[in-house]
Amino acid sequence: MTEAEFIAALRRLPLHPAARSLNDDTALLDAGPLVVTTDTLVEGVHFLPSDPPQDVAWKLVATNLSDLAAKGAIPEGILLNYPLRDDAWDRAFLDGIAEILAAFDTRIIGGDTVTLPPGAPRILTVTAFGSDAAAPARGGARAGDALYVTGTIGDAGAGLAIAFGEEGPPELLAAYRRPQPRLADGRILAPHVHAMMDVSDGLLIDAARMARASGLAVAIDLAAVPLSAAYRAVSGDRIAAATAGDDYQLLFAAPEEFVTDATRIGAFSSGAGLTLHDSGTPVPLPASLGYEHAPRG
Amino acid sequence: MTEAEFIAALRRLPLHPAARSLNDDTALLDAGPLVVTTDTLVEGVHFLPSDPPQDVAWKLVATNLSDLAAKGAIPEGILLNYPLRDDAWDRAFLDGIAEILAAFDTRIIGGDTVTLPPGAPRILTVTAFGSDAAAPARGGARAGDALYVTGTIGDAGAGLAIAFGEEGPPELLAAYRRPQPRLADGRILAPHVHAMMDVSDGLLIDAARMARASGLAVAIDLAAVPLSAAYRAVSGDRIAAATAGDDYQLLFAAPEEFVTDATRIGAFSSGAGLTLHDSGTPVPLPASLGYEHAPRG
Repeated sequence: MTEAEFIAALRRLPLHPAARSLNDDTALLDAGPLVVTTDTLVEGVHFLPSDPPQDVAWKLVATNLSDLAAKGAIPEGILLNYPLRDDAWDRAFLDGIAEILAAFDTRIIGGDTVTLPPGAPRILTVTAFGSDAAAPARGGARAGDALYVTGTIGDAGAGLAIAFGEEGPPELLAAYRRPQPRLADGRILAPHVHAMMDVSDGLLIDAARMARASGLAVAIDLAAVPLSAAYRAVSGDRIAAATAGDDYQLLFAAPEEFVTDATRIGAFSSGAGLTLHDSGTPVPLPASLGYEHAPRG
Repeated sequence: MTEAEFIAALRRLPLHPAARSLNDDTALLDAGPLVVTTDTLVEGVHFLPSDPPQDVAWKLVATNLSDLAAKGAIPEGILLNYPLRDDAWDRAFLDGIAEILAAFDTRIIGGDTVTLPPGAPRILTVTAFGSDAAAPARGGARAGDALYVTGTIGDAGAGLAIAFGEEGPPELLAAYRRPQPRLADGRILAPHVHAMMDVSDGLLIDAARMARASGLAVAIDLAAVPLSAAYRAVSGDRIAAATAGDDYQLLFAAPEEFVTDATRIGAFSSGAGLTLHDSGTPVPLPASLGYEHAPRG
């Protein structure tokens, strides 16, 4: 597709009024205080060249909406920075964008379109804007708070293995390819919790980050980490589940007596660092707590 | 650099309060109605692997600030999506970011850091936010308006040839590597002009876009296109100047009697399309009016 064809296709998606019909060089956004988040996915790092483009589009937007969910925001819309390379892939990618915009009532605000040198891996960026957010910080946990997580953990990590060719149930593959940002949960939780973030790089590394940002220690009970039936059927490895990324569940700190459907998996105390136990029996920390970006090769 | 080292280096740059000290997953921006723009630069397409990283950083931010200038906005800050690959390059790049933030009193709001597969070209994205903008649209020109442009045209195009090894004065190379967004001009002009945009892909293609967005025809007098003394010394080719990109001057529509330091280069009338003349003598349109992205290879 040419840039003009791509922009024409974008115009057929739901447009935010701020987009000025994509006829201008800038967007004009007037929605009160805004939550802003941006995520970049790299072909060969965050997604596989063989992944369906519709799923890559879904995941790119979902990762950003998940950050908005963790602040309790209403999604306003997205900017899309897109490298044109192959017509069929471009069209399928836009189909995936259309699907997730419709699923979460989100709109296009703007973006930029570029070309790639031959053979270059795609690097895709979405920036998302949310409004009306209570916006609990990552660092607001208090000593004595419990640590909670929504949904189940480890499904996407197991789904990644299936994407690489292992046998396994389709719902795990779907958890990897079509993560569901917890926007509705975030709206309910954000005004009441002390701290919240989404689980993107792994439960353990993200919990450790919340504890560090809050100036506290956190102890996690591995036995309490919620696993799906599908995950238990293929693995049941709780350390693997708690260090795999891409869960996009909400991790939050709230008082012990907090009433929630989420699962209580740990507790904050004064001090620093992350410790693990299994129903009270100490468990050594694994070598890697999750995914951390560092330069390769 | 690791992601943690990179974020630590970002924290030593001027941070917008919205950045929450880069301790959270999202930024919280409360600056009234916002102008939002985003630009992506691709290694091997928009910049050369041999370009100094400080200059790449400057240009990446400058292209975004130029869009803010065209709306008359005050820069609030930027999001940076950055692929880590090489320590020395990363550090030099951050030096360039620090220089342009200081030059235009702009700040870091947030971003994302990723790793690249070996050998992948860098793809760099900056999203910029501006406040207090009169925000003239691209499509507001009226029949009878004159077309004006700030500064001189073609210097960056000639500078690109110098970057590729041709002989030429250093100010042309500087125009290519260190474009100066016309923020001060934009603040003065924006409340008074009918339409405004920056010249990024080439004077002719951008003027044609303004005419199309405004539903008008535009006639440009090539003899009036302002050229620098340095450009005239090496070339003097006005068609080349008017179709080269990267000028980052402001192009605007205003009444004939508008008082401005900018140069009057054309006129809008009812109808459609772009025509060229040289002090009244018709000139055929060149095959390419400027730079347009389309997929390669």
